[in-house]
Amino acid sequence: MSDADPATIEVWRGAMVESRHRVAFAVIDAGGDLVAARGDIERPVYARSAIKPLQALPLVESGAADAFSVSPEELAIACASHGGEPRHIAVVATWLQRLGLTERDLECGGHAPSHAPSARALYAAGQEPTAVHNNCSGKHTGMLATCRRLGEPTRGYIAFEHPQQQRVLAVLSDMCGVDLRHAPRGIDGCGLPQLGISLRALARAFARFAAPDSLAPARQASCRRIAAAMAAHPFLLAGSGRFCTRAIEAVHAKALVKTGAEGVYIAAIPVRGLGIALKIEDGAARAAEVAMASLLLRHAGLDDAERAAVQALSRPPISNVAGMTVGEIAAAPGF
Amino acid sequence: MSDADPATIEVWRGAMVESRHRVAFAVIDAGGDLVAARGDIERPVYARSAIKPLQALPLVESGAADAFSVSPEELAIACASHGGEPRHIAVVATWLQRLGLTERDLECGGHAPSHAPSARALYAAGQEPTAVHNNCSGKHTGMLATCRRLGEPTRGYIAFEHPQQQRVLAVLSDMCGVDLRHAPRGIDGCGLPQLGISLRALARAFARFAAPDSLAPARQASCRRIAAAMAAHPFLLAGSGRFCTRAIEAVHAKALVKTGAEGVYIAAIPVRGLGIALKIEDGAARAAEVAMASLLLRHAGLDDAERAAVQALSRPPISNVAGMTVGEIAAAPGF
Repeated sequence: MSDADPATIEVWRGAMVESRHRVAFAVIDAGGDLVAARGDIERPVYARSAIKPLQALPLVESGAADAFSVSPEELAIACASHGGEPRHIAVVATWLQRLGLTERDLECGGHAPSHAPSARALYAAGQEPTAVHNNCSGKHTGMLATCRRLGEPTRGYIAFEHPQQQRVLAVLSDMCGVDLRHAPRGIDGCGLPQLGISLRALARAFARFAAPDSLAPARQASCRRIAAAMAAHPFLLAGSGRFCTRAIEAVHAKALVKTGAEGVYIAAIPVRGLGIALKIEDGAARAAEVAMASLLLRHAGLDDAERAAVQALSRPPISNVAGMTVGEIAAAPGF
Repeated sequence: MSDADPATIEVWRGAMVESRHRVAFAVIDAGGDLVAARGDIERPVYARSAIKPLQALPLVESGAADAFSVSPEELAIACASHGGEPRHIAVVATWLQRLGLTERDLECGGHAPSHAPSARALYAAGQEPTAVHNNCSGKHTGMLATCRRLGEPTRGYIAFEHPQQQRVLAVLSDMCGVDLRHAPRGIDGCGLPQLGISLRALARAFARFAAPDSLAPARQASCRRIAAAMAAHPFLLAGSGRFCTRAIEAVHAKALVKTGAEGVYIAAIPVRGLGIALKIEDGAARAAEVAMASLLLRHAGLDDAERAAVQALSRPPISNVAGMTVGEIAAAPGF
């Protein structure tokens, strides 16, 4: 097994492995040096929602966060893939109202809360989900705030050509150390542009985000402000029972982790000055979580209690409908 | 690329492939000869719900189907992973009632209907899902009917040691042409035993099921009766918008297909005397559907209209939340 081969996450049921997931990952320090890697870390991937903490940088750097007195809660929800629980909805709705906007200004579309009890409560009350319930509604509200602050039209803010997305493009290029203007492009679930970026460049960007000392003073301050908001409000980043929330709580914010659709996960580890980016080849979230937990055990400088908590996250049981444990998911030997 | 390498299903978003799935499959004729294959077809897999049409054989062969006047609708739902839509629930509930049983006799546990509008309607009516809503409730009802007919205790019918599961074991061994008594074992989502069986053996079993001429007369009749029920009632096998239902309708029952959890699909193609078994390495249903559609195009002897309908199933679009098409899933070149 060489570092060029992907690592494997195994899904066990009874006496045998039922399914297997391939993982590529990069662990990089703030100087850009590779600390650990497996699989092809040069191939571009869409980071999807894992990129949100970097997409939030213009919200701070434009002056919008100060001008609109954006709270740490609001900054955290700007980085979130939230579950649409009542507290998430309250933070977004209040923020929108303060900006003089409504959910009709959000161009992300509406979907039911991923938090099942919240979805059931919504339907039981005879309501339908709106764009506020979209897991990305906080990010979109932050982008609207930025446009407002800069006197730009908010309509069409999700288009690649809109100044807001050009700002995001410049910030991502800068943080990743790669000119992304001609990167492969797609459209995210919430309508925003997505760019193909290598795991190496993503890990480097999050290493800089974690340990921004070498960056320009304004960028340093923005990174620290966003990281502090994520560290203070892990519930707002995801929600009840969700991996991002549980992992950040388990390690007492020594690592900040963020999920992205299609099996992406990133981590910024301020105490170690490290960034991690991983992608499951097949896009499975269950494997991305196990892979991230396994990497945190190795790289996040955890104490014994933190290790025990993350170890549980690294081997989630599989239950059948009747509630019996029938298997587990775990990193394969040699991960 | 050799036949020993798995085939690939690609998930496209915008300008690039975002995720990839590896597929192993076997296409076998009723004589046991390999018609086509990719990947490791000797490694055992759990067929999960794809095995249901074979698990239903004892229902017919025990005499239970005749003794209880089991209808084609009931036989179809015994082979189903149904969506819990009102029509599915009605068929199971009526059958249970006729047997003098209730949902409390089902040992599969309850889960919300996978058909989202049916789940919403259930909760909106202030009800909670019971074991009848379990996608496997028809199979479990068929097993209870068999135990009743043979004068066996129904309680504990899901245990490997219960006569019902020993009967299923014997039938599966016979159809697969493999002694499965010592096969690797796990427990299915619905509590029943699952056995590790190679794709080669599974494809052979479904080839025999599709073209049972060489089997003993009673087995022949049972296979034909179950296949006819599946062909006549594709809606009961799965439900609204589901791949099994759509595919069987699209090919006018030239092929009978059945999904299993963790990326398994089987097909029985009576007109060609073929059986197909496939497994997505990582367990993804989306890839299993595309792989099955691609194999039906090649092996199911379709006419032009049927081909066009299956072609659509072989390249499902990916939409974002706002309803815009942003990608598609398709077999890679060289599949």
